[in-house]
Amino acid sequence: MAMMTGEEYVESMRKMNLQVYMFGKKIDNPVDDPILRPSLNSVKATYDLACNPEFEDLMTATSSFTGKKINRFLHIHQGTEDLVKKVKMQRMLGQQTAACFQRCVGMDAFNAVFSTTFEIDKKYGTNYHKNFVEYAKYCQEKDFTVDGAMTDPKGDRGLAPHAQPDPDMYLRVVEQREDGIVVRGAKAHQTGAINSQEMIVMPTISMGPEDKEYAVSFAVPTDAEGIIMIVGRQSCDTRKLEGSELDVGNSEFGGMEALVVFDDVFVPNDRIFLNGESEFAGMMVERFAGYHRQSYGGCKVGVGDVLIGAAAVAAEYNGCAKASHIKDKLIEMTHLNETLYCCGIACSAEGTRTESGNYMIDLLLANVCKQNVTRFPYEIARLAEDIAGGIVVTAPSEADLRSPVTGPYVEKYMAAAKGVTVENRLRILRLIENLCLGSAAVGYRTESMHGAGSPQAQRIMISRQGNLPMKKELAKKIAKIKE
Amino acid sequence: MAMMTGEEYVESMRKMNLQVYMFGKKIDNPVDDPILRPSLNSVKATYDLACNPEFEDLMTATSSFTGKKINRFLHIHQGTEDLVKKVKMQRMLGQQTAACFQRCVGMDAFNAVFSTTFEIDKKYGTNYHKNFVEYAKYCQEKDFTVDGAMTDPKGDRGLAPHAQPDPDMYLRVVEQREDGIVVRGAKAHQTGAINSQEMIVMPTISMGPEDKEYAVSFAVPTDAEGIIMIVGRQSCDTRKLEGSELDVGNSEFGGMEALVVFDDVFVPNDRIFLNGESEFAGMMVERFAGYHRQSYGGCKVGVGDVLIGAAAVAAEYNGCAKASHIKDKLIEMTHLNETLYCCGIACSAEGTRTESGNYMIDLLLANVCKQNVTRFPYEIARLAEDIAGGIVVTAPSEADLRSPVTGPYVEKYMAAAKGVTVENRLRILRLIENLCLGSAAVGYRTESMHGAGSPQAQRIMISRQGNLPMKKELAKKIAKIKE
Amino acid sequence: MAMMTGEEYVESMRKMNLQVYMFGKKIDNPVDDPILRPSLNSVKATYDLACNPEFEDLMTATSSFTGKKINRFLHIHQGTEDLVKKVKMQRMLGQQTAACFQRCVGMDAFNAVFSTTFEIDKKYGTNYHKNFVEYAKYCQEKDFTVDGAMTDPKGDRGLAPHAQPDPDMYLRVVEQREDGIVVRGAKAHQTGAINSQEMIVMPTISMGPEDKEYAVSFAVPTDAEGIIMIVGRQSCDTRKLEGSELDVGNSEFGGMEALVVFDDVFVPNDRIFLNGESEFAGMMVERFAGYHRQSYGGCKVGVGDVLIGAAAVAAEYNGCAKASHIKDKLIEMTHLNETLYCCGIACSAEGTRTESGNYMIDLLLANVCKQNVTRFPYEIARLAEDIAGGIVVTAPSEADLRSPVTGPYVEKYMAAAKGVTVENRLRILRLIENLCLGSAAVGYRTESMHGAGSPQAQRIMISRQGNLPMKKELAKKIAKIKE
Amino acid sequence: MAMMTGEEYVESMRKMNLQVYMFGKKIDNPVDDPILRPSLNSVKATYDLACNPEFEDLMTATSSFTGKKINRFLHIHQGTEDLVKKVKMQRMLGQQTAACFQRCVGMDAFNAVFSTTFEIDKKYGTNYHKNFVEYAKYCQEKDFTVDGAMTDPKGDRGLAPHAQPDPDMYLRVVEQREDGIVVRGAKAHQTGAINSQEMIVMPTISMGPEDKEYAVSFAVPTDAEGIIMIVGRQSCDTRKLEGSELDVGNSEFGGMEALVVFDDVFVPNDRIFLNGESEFAGMMVERFAGYHRQSYGGCKVGVGDVLIGAAAVAAEYNGCAKASHIKDKLIEMTHLNETLYCCGIACSAEGTRTESGNYMIDLLLANVCKQNVTRFPYEIARLAEDIAGGIVVTAPSEADLRSPVTGPYVEKYMAAAKGVTVENRLRILRLIENLCLGSAAVGYRTESMHGAGSPQAQRIMISRQGNLPMKKELAKKIAKIKE
Repeated sequence: MAMMTGEEYVESMRKMNLQVYMFGKKIDNPVDDPILRPSLNSVKATYDLACNPEFEDLMTATSSFTGKKINRFLHIHQGTEDLVKKVKMQRMLGQQTAACFQRCVGMDAFNAVFSTTFEIDKKYGTNYHKNFVEYAKYCQEKDFTVDGAMTDPKGDRGLAPHAQPDPDMYLRVVEQREDGIVVRGAKAHQTGAINSQEMIVMPTISMGPEDKEYAVSFAVPTDAEGIIMIVGRQSCDTRKLEGSELDVGNSEFGGMEALVVFDDVFVPNDRIFLNGESEFAGMMVERFAGYHRQSYGGCKVGVGDVLIGAAAVAAEYNGCAKASHIKDKLIEMTHLNETLYCCGIACSAEGTRTESGNYMIDLLLANVCKQNVTRFPYEIARLAEDIAGGIVVTAPSEADLRSPVTGPYVEKYMAAAKGVTVENRLRILRLIENLCLGSAAVGYRTESMHGAGSPQAQRIMISRQGNLPMKKELAKKIAKIKE
Repeated sequence: MAMMTGEEYVESMRKMNLQVYMFGKKIDNPVDDPILRPSLNSVKATYDLACNPEFEDLMTATSSFTGKKINRFLHIHQGTEDLVKKVKMQRMLGQQTAACFQRCVGMDAFNAVFSTTFEIDKKYGTNYHKNFVEYAKYCQEKDFTVDGAMTDPKGDRGLAPHAQPDPDMYLRVVEQREDGIVVRGAKAHQTGAINSQEMIVMPTISMGPEDKEYAVSFAVPTDAEGIIMIVGRQSCDTRKLEGSELDVGNSEFGGMEALVVFDDVFVPNDRIFLNGESEFAGMMVERFAGYHRQSYGGCKVGVGDVLIGAAAVAAEYNGCAKASHIKDKLIEMTHLNETLYCCGIACSAEGTRTESGNYMIDLLLANVCKQNVTRFPYEIARLAEDIAGGIVVTAPSEADLRSPVTGPYVEKYMAAAKGVTVENRLRILRLIENLCLGSAAVGYRTESMHGAGSPQAQRIMISRQGNLPMKKELAKKIAKIKE
Repeated sequence: MAMMTGEEYVESMRKMNLQVYMFGKKIDNPVDDPILRPSLNSVKATYDLACNPEFEDLMTATSSFTGKKINRFLHIHQGTEDLVKKVKMQRMLGQQTAACFQRCVGMDAFNAVFSTTFEIDKKYGTNYHKNFVEYAKYCQEKDFTVDGAMTDPKGDRGLAPHAQPDPDMYLRVVEQREDGIVVRGAKAHQTGAINSQEMIVMPTISMGPEDKEYAVSFAVPTDAEGIIMIVGRQSCDTRKLEGSELDVGNSEFGGMEALVVFDDVFVPNDRIFLNGESEFAGMMVERFAGYHRQSYGGCKVGVGDVLIGAAAVAAEYNGCAKASHIKDKLIEMTHLNETLYCCGIACSAEGTRTESGNYMIDLLLANVCKQNVTRFPYEIARLAEDIAGGIVVTAPSEADLRSPVTGPYVEKYMAAAKGVTVENRLRILRLIENLCLGSAAVGYRTESMHGAGSPQAQRIMISRQGNLPMKKELAKKIAKIKE
Repeated sequence: MAMMTGEEYVESMRKMNLQVYMFGKKIDNPVDDPILRPSLNSVKATYDLACNPEFEDLMTATSSFTGKKINRFLHIHQGTEDLVKKVKMQRMLGQQTAACFQRCVGMDAFNAVFSTTFEIDKKYGTNYHKNFVEYAKYCQEKDFTVDGAMTDPKGDRGLAPHAQPDPDMYLRVVEQREDGIVVRGAKAHQTGAINSQEMIVMPTISMGPEDKEYAVSFAVPTDAEGIIMIVGRQSCDTRKLEGSELDVGNSEFGGMEALVVFDDVFVPNDRIFLNGESEFAGMMVERFAGYHRQSYGGCKVGVGDVLIGAAAVAAEYNGCAKASHIKDKLIEMTHLNETLYCCGIACSAEGTRTESGNYMIDLLLANVCKQNVTRFPYEIARLAEDIAGGIVVTAPSEADLRSPVTGPYVEKYMAAAKGVTVENRLRILRLIENLCLGSAAVGYRTESMHGAGSPQAQRIMISRQGNLPMKKELAKKIAKIKE
């Protein structure tokens, strides 16, 4: 099968039999649900743009398995150039969607599982790497969207998986069968699970031997029996139900998050990538998290580009684009955004080859990248709100603009710079609201904070990777200290 | 009439004949509208707490006109102690409502108009101060909520009021009659207009002689003929229609903003406080803005207290309250919040007497106060999102919690620290969402940015008030520079 | 005896028999030593200005013991007005000296010991308060400068005083005699000890019963037998030996620090303020530290004023005072500096009466004040370096300016804005160097960081004073959480 | 001639006949002057390490002209790998010297002049590129240190070069002769001029046709007739005269700055690279500045590594390395430092080929890099001062440590963590003083601020390179705005 078009992807999703719940009700047709559809459209864009010659170089790659052209999201990185292109693709997609396009988790899972399974097999003579390679070829062939699922609910955070009062707070193997395993548990914060055909599950923390049953990684279709998805609420989610293209700010694209429950799901043997080799859980987590922290140096930069652009348009529409403080704030936003990009590029350019042959980002720099992402988008959003003005949160609805009674007042009193329509002014203000306070703020702010691990997780890695002993030796040498 | 209870206030509002529009439709009963009601409740709290002996000292004062006990929001400051108590009252109300309680604008208008009219009369022999004193006594007697309306739409920001293509972009006198004036224009971002019985209108910028017709200040009932209010959209506004107390985070209190249109409104002579004495427009603006920048060192600190508390509860419910990085973040939030409070207190304690006898805050320090308010709440919110975790934006709805199908999964997998119910965990997360991304974020973030003037407005005042020439002399003296 | 003039103070110091060492040698005449003299001049200014009618209101007070006019540095605070005036006096002195004037420690010790001894006596029937009152009257009568000595060397920071391998790492009583006590130990970082006639010693941490011998407070003359002072090095200290008024930046004023060793010093009974009542060590420390953290909201603000002024002069001399980014940086410096002042004022205005009758600052706000002082002066200095230009660190010496060979080149090529002499340009640059990198940077930067306790000490206090349980209750009430 | 050893370099410098002035006197032997020697040693290290096999890969390259091994500082970048290695070499040298090693300016001049001359020749048929290539080969052959001189005194900053009252405020051609040109003017802030055998001069700003005589670039030996160097003062410069290895913190390495005067210096035709083609002045400046802003993402990171290490050692010696706030501050320092490195790497990895064939860094990212360097080293230094403690600025001198009178007190009372000698504790504290306040602070702080252009210069470039129009289009597309 060749690469799918966006439309083919949508049709493919329509054929899935997902168990999706929202507001306490089952959603029979998630593909056409007005709240969920924008998030599907974001994924659809990753198909559409892959078919667009302008973006082909970034969006596609040559399969290392088959030599065929594939979507880059399904690619195993063959060098630092691939790592850099990944970041550039993510920035471009962020620019095109101003939203989370959800496929990075799958790409990052692909590469983390590829190299980790290689090392497990080397030690244990297991078959995981071969399983994974076959699975990857299958997904490439089908041009599937794959979710990468890591975060467990964790229950009592002070206790190891096996020590939890409820043993299911970390996803685990509840039955080892001849033909496979049965798993139970849940994965939280699953961005894009609803828009994926497949799902790769990985452990969420380093584990010891007592956590053997929790050290499990595998792939299943997202509509496998026993999988239930419960959609999380987002700021302004129901505004999408009102039918106003204007009021939602970004009417086409969005993101979404779900709690994915595994209620005794069967996994056949050839889809298992880790099953009890607990000392490899940490490696898989660290590699996935490393790749995923790199990702943020691309996607959020792209969304930042849109927000910077929106702030600049708002300043122009407000009639104050030439004020020196406005120009300076746009420079600061650009500076911060490009600093994130520098981190994304640097950890990619400094990548290294793993034993399995694919390429790993520089772990220290990728953690530095993500740590900055937990800070700068907040400041960029703050500056956007500063530039846009209070009108971002006090502007009337589109209905008020259209109403014969209030419309004339809105048209009259919301007019600003000459030649700018009130509708267009409202449109750009609503986009800024969407990104700073609305449903996209979930992705641009909170996801920047917690996605791929919360800030403290990166600090721990920076501490580990920072090589303080070497730096202490440097200082002692300069100070001519002899101990 | 004695001071009103909260219930009496609500009844009083119910009797008003306001022209309120929302989503393009007239709202016949704004008092009981589920979207608007929480904002009314915030004002109601200023009546309820004034009747509560515990808060009497902060909430009430003795009228300088009548010697009677009045609500402090209607008080003319008689000393720095009153200025300090104002800030403490505001902090307390922020703590009780976690929202904007909307009455500061009226209080600040009261005190700005009181002293400015005194100085106009002194120069011109006009009657404005007497007009205002009578009006103030009337409002005190009726125990009314008064809106203070300043911000005009401004149109093309590069042009003075009289030079605008549409002459109504700044509110102006369109007819001088024997018995009064007729005004036309609009006031934007009117916090609490809908919940007020009265409204004091003031100019929004310093003016020259050519802007004479724009130099106007007066009072009208909010249901005066020709006044139309168009409610602005807020993040998550329609979530309040769903009926879930849990999902809205703060089900009782809220804020709101409206565009208030003056479509040829008549103002009788005895309600006029400025009419053409254009050189006093700047004084009125500067004083109102000064008081209002002080206000933010109280109210937002109180809301910040709730957010700090919510983050601490979330950490506890998540089971990680003892992590040193969590504790340190709570300290940082407290530090930033108390720094704002210091600014609020300092500009009050350093207040001085005006010619009219009431007290003015220290202008430099009040601007410093507000400038910090444009920064720290954003950082406090960022840290709250950090502490609370990604679950703030991925948690399922209350309907999912209550559903027989999804409820058990939500209960099972969202359980965290021992002994904490999932419902309570969701409640605190929703409150944090409300303050950081939801409808209260409008008040806590964007209003902190733009209320009482955008950041650059304070910088201009800091520049003017900072006495750089004196500082240059100090430096030259130390450096023994002789020029 | 009446209040001393600056000259009388200098003569008084000249009569002292201090044991001062610097660079390994005894300094026979510290008063006239070119490295030490500027620090003496800073203290001298506190006498000169007290005699200056312009500053009388700030610099003097009425003794609560004798009703006589005294220098405010020897005053027991009688109300919040006194607390506020203290901060204003400190700001003014910082403005006049651009240095540390060293007397705040004595004033803060006076007030901390006054109230603590009152409470000790109340519990134990001791005589400490009376001792202290008599001592305070004596110092007021003599118009002495008093050092307040707190910081012990601390040795192994993980061990309590009594558990240290060397028992002298905290100052302690080595002998209880009928007529007094003999003490041994040292006090580090003693700002101004060399310029004081008297010294009050206090413990440095909270103590338990096992640290009884370390719980000691007393007063001695600075030239008491057994006291040795070792002067610490400061950046650019020896530049003062070169004789160039220009190159030192601030030729008249400065600060200094010494290690003060107590090599078995005898203290008579009537000079003892604490002797074994270990549970009061903590109270004395907390109160002294509280007052001293308030102090920084005055003195460093005054020094900041000079640095802001110097940066503005440098911009003018460089010919770029009108650039919008320069103006904005000066606004930011002013904003940060005034924020510190707000904190100093607020913790004073919110002060409360102690049992003994003197007034204590608000502990939470004073800690918030100092915490900001550990940050903002660094940013102010950074901005000053930005504005001043690289020339601050590459400018030639005065000798190059005066040399017939290099002078003409320096005059030609260092000329900038029209009408500004190169000498004056160099003077202002050297003042900036002095404050940012030179000897005054010790006071403006590092002392801002560590004086009155390092940043973490304030964070611990903010945590203790921040009343998190109350804030959690506020949040739960809003979220309608019932536990 | 083969590459020189460090010793050979020193001997080579000893043979130069430089006109160096300091403190108003001619320095006959700059090589052995105790104030200047540490800066020479830093350059010497670039020779020593090039001979060290461990660092050969970073320190050397293959000449694109001759195919011979050369010092990388004399290399023309042949690809992005060279750009990345440059940054890594700089970080390593910063780690080894904790100082400015001064050779980057020459390297950056080499590459900027190489590509610019190529484009001038292409347009005008001039001979500049050939001139430069021959010159570059000569320097490579001789293994010279080359200064790159750009910054003119600028006089009145509001006026163009030709409009200055004194026409020499920008270096200019005062005589066009058959065999060459005669130039007059000065270059300020010349880091390392004194330690270089050669010097490349470039214009300092974009120029118009009226500034023709100022549009000049050339090379001369540093001891050419008419060149006079006046050494600038640095914080703690004369401490190096005292002979204490301990007190200076970094006794071996340092930096220096000089004002270099060109008093009618003759330049032969074959050393001219630009002479009147004024529209190319801007290109040369922009490229040099671009390369040099990249450089800071290497060298300052290396110095930062030493400071981080020193702070960690100080914490250990103080006995508080295990405190969580100390560990967190070290993480923050590492995070900030590595963010700078990311920027250095990213602008290199994203480099592109110029018309001449060498490689140029990404201009936007290089400016972002330098802008961060104007901020983060200040924060790193602040944190180092926090961790090290007040003792950094109050510690006694080495002479006090060695004195039989004070030594025992210093040994006793400055003892801290078990097993650490007081001497070693003082050594590490002095290194921190050196980097934060002393002579190395000139390089680590102020040079980070102003080197390669002051902060505002980068902001202007970020504004130009940030492609705001494209970002505005992105936003309009998302918001579905049709204009």
